[in-house]
Amino acid sequence: MRIVVLAGGIGGARFLRGLRAAAPEADITVIGNTGDDIHLFGLKVCPDLDTVMYTLGGGINEEQGWGRADETFHVKEELAAYGVEPTWFGLGDRDFATHVIRTQMLGAGYPLSAVTEALCARWKPGVRLLPMTDDRVETHVAIQAEEGTRKVVHFQEYWVKLRAAVAAEAVVPVGADQSKPAPGVLEAISTADVILFPPSNPVVSIGAILAVPGIREAIAEAGVPVVGLSPIVGGAPVRGMADKVLAAVGVETTAAAVAAHYGSGLLDGWLVHTSDADAVADVEAAGIRCRAVPLLMADLDATAQMAREALALAEEARA
Amino acid sequence: MRIVVLAGGIGGARFLRGLRAAAPEADITVIGNTGDDIHLFGLKVCPDLDTVMYTLGGGINEEQGWGRADETFHVKEELAAYGVEPTWFGLGDRDFATHVIRTQMLGAGYPLSAVTEALCARWKPGVRLLPMTDDRVETHVAIQAEEGTRKVVHFQEYWVKLRAAVAAEAVVPVGADQSKPAPGVLEAISTADVILFPPSNPVVSIGAILAVPGIREAIAEAGVPVVGLSPIVGGAPVRGMADKVLAAVGVETTAAAVAAHYGSGLLDGWLVHTSDADAVADVEAAGIRCRAVPLLMADLDATAQMAREALALAEEARA
Repeated sequence: MRIVVLAGGIGGARFLRGLRAAAPEADITVIGNTGDDIHLFGLKVCPDLDTVMYTLGGGINEEQGWGRADETFHVKEELAAYGVEPTWFGLGDRDFATHVIRTQMLGAGYPLSAVTEALCARWKPGVRLLPMTDDRVETHVAIQAEEGTRKVVHFQEYWVKLRAAVAAEAVVPVGADQSKPAPGVLEAISTADVILFPPSNPVVSIGAILAVPGIREAIAEAGVPVVGLSPIVGGAPVRGMADKVLAAVGVETTAAAVAAHYGSGLLDGWLVHTSDADAVADVEAAGIRCRAVPLLMADLDATAQMAREALALAEEARA
Repeated sequence: MRIVVLAGGIGGARFLRGLRAAAPEADITVIGNTGDDIHLFGLKVCPDLDTVMYTLGGGINEEQGWGRADETFHVKEELAAYGVEPTWFGLGDRDFATHVIRTQMLGAGYPLSAVTEALCARWKPGVRLLPMTDDRVETHVAIQAEEGTRKVVHFQEYWVKLRAAVAAEAVVPVGADQSKPAPGVLEAISTADVILFPPSNPVVSIGAILAVPGIREAIAEAGVPVVGLSPIVGGAPVRGMADKVLAAVGVETTAAAVAAHYGSGLLDGWLVHTSDADAVADVEAAGIRCRAVPLLMADLDATAQMAREALALAEEARA
């Protein structure tokens, strides 16, 4: 079975670990979000790709969900001691090496997809990890600044520095309209048996991937079941601050509203958490098969079970 | 008093610490060797400039004489885990930050002299540290390869990877002939009251500095005392492997031979170690004032005393 998964960072990575356990024989291709990539200190940092790579490769800091295990922050400390900005991004020493290699390979002319493949040669994530695009896309967020003026900041500044504490007025994947899917992305979609949207951020993660021209269309036209898992449980994000960016695109923070946001043109099935069972009828009324199942990725078993539910719903949709 | 010092790495840096203690009111300009600079992992590394900066700024690893105190090597470990070469250069995590900033500033168009000044704004070395040139100069070493063929390697590969275990047949500061002294270098020399050569490597450190067109001439024409301290004691380098590169330029590993290598056209005074007192007559016969004094930089006091002896010999030469 060939499974294509669109993935952001922590939520996507953890779901993938469950999927790999639930479907060990499957051929899994991950289309990773690169909209939250950022250039720091002359280095190209791809937080979502790395979170997937480290999580599936056994190098992740399990507690925080991002960054490396057994990490130190001496490079970062020294950069701060030199007075170099920004100081709010948590780049660890072990993590730094990944960005150094990536930056050097990009500088030598390799596209990000080739760089990602080279990095994965070490981590052996057990999936094929593709960036959504080899082109530069950066999600920017418009926020209220002083005296009613607006200010546009990089997504990471909004998310990490400001901790999404101010309202997002708009979320724009800058450069997406000019970008092309990375090599292999459209081929993977068109030959997939199932396409899954893990409980990743619908706006800045999966939304950014879908903003690359050709990807949304390819998914809609693939003719195979497309099943998503709600990142919203009980009217709030399971983790992260997805509510802030959902508001910016005019979507309510409910499991049903996110399904409607993707739409029946894209989604065939949608899983909501058991506590959101009353949303099932609304989602189905919108033409999307829906089931209420436990959606908390408490451990690998619970996560694998979520993946099995998603695959089961896909088979139901196929029938 | 304005003192100009030509400096390599460890020997030069330690001497400078003694000089600063011996002449706390002096205005000291250091012309640092950049011939052993190397590009690693896309980063510009300047080992000698950094050794001077860290030593005088209080950040040096005192025991090994290079690199940062309280250092970790996680970036390096990870680069090796990715299979990236070379693995033989000891880049620490704290040290890494310096190279990241330097590389970013160079990429933004700042010359190395401006970058060095910016880095020194943090370390406050108490001297003005200038690179010998803003141009790229790289010392290469020709060695015997298999079956009688010759191979040319970067100085760092010769020094750090091969530990100078094979004979050097030639030492060439590649690019030096096309280089220009960095801003401030010739001005510092022409307005100096004294010029000192610390016990740095005469070939790859001071030799590389003198290979930048204009520097040797400016020193010879400055009309002020030029005094050096022998890095050779008892027919062997006090530290390092200077004998290997002295042989490549046809100079014996003796205190007298090194003085003769610089020559009376450049040197007015030369200090040899007490155990080399029998060299004094030879050096003086070559037209260079010579004194035998303790030349082992065992601690700050001993090193400051060496600096005082050098300044005293300079005053004697001036009289």
